[in-house]
Amino acid sequence: MQLGMVGLGRMGANMAQRLIGGSHKVAGFDPDNEARNKAHANGVTPCDSLQALIEAVPTPRVIWLMVPSGKITDDSVNALLPLLASGDTVIDGGNSNYKDTLRRADLYAGKGLGYVDCGTSGGVWGLEQGYSMMIGGDEKTVESLRPIFETLAPGKNQGWGRVGPVGSGHFTKMVHNGIEYGLMQSYAEGFSILQHKADFNLDLHQIGEIWRYGSVVRSWLLELTTDALGKNPGMDGIAPYVVDSGEGRWTVNEAIDLNVPAPVITLSLIERLRSRDTESFTDKLLSAMRNEFGGHPIKRETK
Amino acid sequence: MQLGMVGLGRMGANMAQRLIGGSHKVAGFDPDNEARNKAHANGVTPCDSLQALIEAVPTPRVIWLMVPSGKITDDSVNALLPLLASGDTVIDGGNSNYKDTLRRADLYAGKGLGYVDCGTSGGVWGLEQGYSMMIGGDEKTVESLRPIFETLAPGKNQGWGRVGPVGSGHFTKMVHNGIEYGLMQSYAEGFSILQHKADFNLDLHQIGEIWRYGSVVRSWLLELTTDALGKNPGMDGIAPYVVDSGEGRWTVNEAIDLNVPAPVITLSLIERLRSRDTESFTDKLLSAMRNEFGGHPIKRETK
Repeated sequence: MQLGMVGLGRMGANMAQRLIGGSHKVAGFDPDNEARNKAHANGVTPCDSLQALIEAVPTPRVIWLMVPSGKITDDSVNALLPLLASGDTVIDGGNSNYKDTLRRADLYAGKGLGYVDCGTSGGVWGLEQGYSMMIGGDEKTVESLRPIFETLAPGKNQGWGRVGPVGSGHFTKMVHNGIEYGLMQSYAEGFSILQHKADFNLDLHQIGEIWRYGSVVRSWLLELTTDALGKNPGMDGIAPYVVDSGEGRWTVNEAIDLNVPAPVITLSLIERLRSRDTESFTDKLLSAMRNEFGGHPIKRETK
Repeated sequence: MQLGMVGLGRMGANMAQRLIGGSHKVAGFDPDNEARNKAHANGVTPCDSLQALIEAVPTPRVIWLMVPSGKITDDSVNALLPLLASGDTVIDGGNSNYKDTLRRADLYAGKGLGYVDCGTSGGVWGLEQGYSMMIGGDEKTVESLRPIFETLAPGKNQGWGRVGPVGSGHFTKMVHNGIEYGLMQSYAEGFSILQHKADFNLDLHQIGEIWRYGSVVRSWLLELTTDALGKNPGMDGIAPYVVDSGEGRWTVNEAIDLNVPAPVITLSLIERLRSRDTESFTDKLLSAMRNEFGGHPIKRETK
């Protein structure tokens, strides 16, 4: 098939490359000149504007958005709207909030345009291993895009599927990321306990390697964790500061809206906030309270 | 090698069978007649007492304990003590608390006997796929048992290793199980959120299948979860009641002793307690408090 890729960052560029490897034709737009040149070297037809991209893709057009969620996705969706023709379809492959997706899909439906959401997992490994894709959209539209999904997925009939109507793909990917927070936190806490048991002087990389085969905790994430522990057993030079990019918050909000207790996913998000709260007012206040009622000494700041 | 297996339950019987498949000779004792007969049919030389087992295994003897942790392990360890000869080795392959292991190993060391702890993961799948084994003990002793571990493991050099001195195997397995609690809880919460999103009418089995390929959350546990969702999408007939068998509690205690915050592993244990607290006094009291200060109505028991 022929397809226009908006966004040639790490994810978009890799997906374009995998599509080209599967004999699709990809035109690509990115505001960054270097990103365009790099993609060009990998076989992408470079376009220096959305207008140029639209002209490079034959109708009915398929445009894949692989840009940061939020404002940039909104800007792209809005900018594409007047350029597209009836029958064209936009696929948002990014990590959009599914509520934004529902809003954007409504806007497109009013103009006779297709809108499909694709929650995409696999990160930088997707180029080689294929992407796991949770797709929301109208059945006929999704079916028409089958050759694209079959190429991007790890296998023709593996790792992708239409999970429901528009919005459901991003909803499912959001929950996927919530689960990911919990899995990551569980491994990290366990390895930290092992690391602190000085009596046994454990080799965390060795233990991760043992667990990779036959254990109940074996997983792809464990393999990555074990690799990281092999390269840097003491986690030297890495600040204990964990960023979040929104999906965890949305999962927690959604769980509350649905009256579903999701304590561990919630706490995994909270632990990321905690990692960044290096000047914890809560901890200062707790220390002050202990001093008030029990005369317990306060540890003073040294800076 | 030749080896005596104490305990021919699900785990012990499967391990004996895998050892026999690897051309080892296994004599086995279990107080249960049926367990002995079943093992006999799989090639185990059945013994109806520990004394008979000791006589069936040539010196220096290797005795593998695969019995429930706690009192039964203590009873077995104590009963074996006067029957063994200098140079014999006992391997505790069960889920013993590592502190008990240290105590038992001391007892054995005083008599010139070897004591090795082997944290064993793999459950009922181990027979076919091999077991992941975290081994603690003196280097020479563990090395002398190499042919046994190579056979039980998923591969000759995969999924097993001596992680440190005696006790460290069970310590590592304990933390493994703590991590397992967190992973299980994370998946369960995520699937529950998906299940409650009525708007999208999601097929949880399909989503699990998609995630198995290329996603960041792919794991062996996800495969089992997906299989369970395929067989019983509504979890019909399964009470929302989750048992724990101790390793989670020990992990939490150990984390506290080491001053390591392990909030998600801890909360995963708490959630299991919560699942069994169907007559929650806490919840009743909370409802009463709301009524006291705000006049909010109390939901009455209907039974």
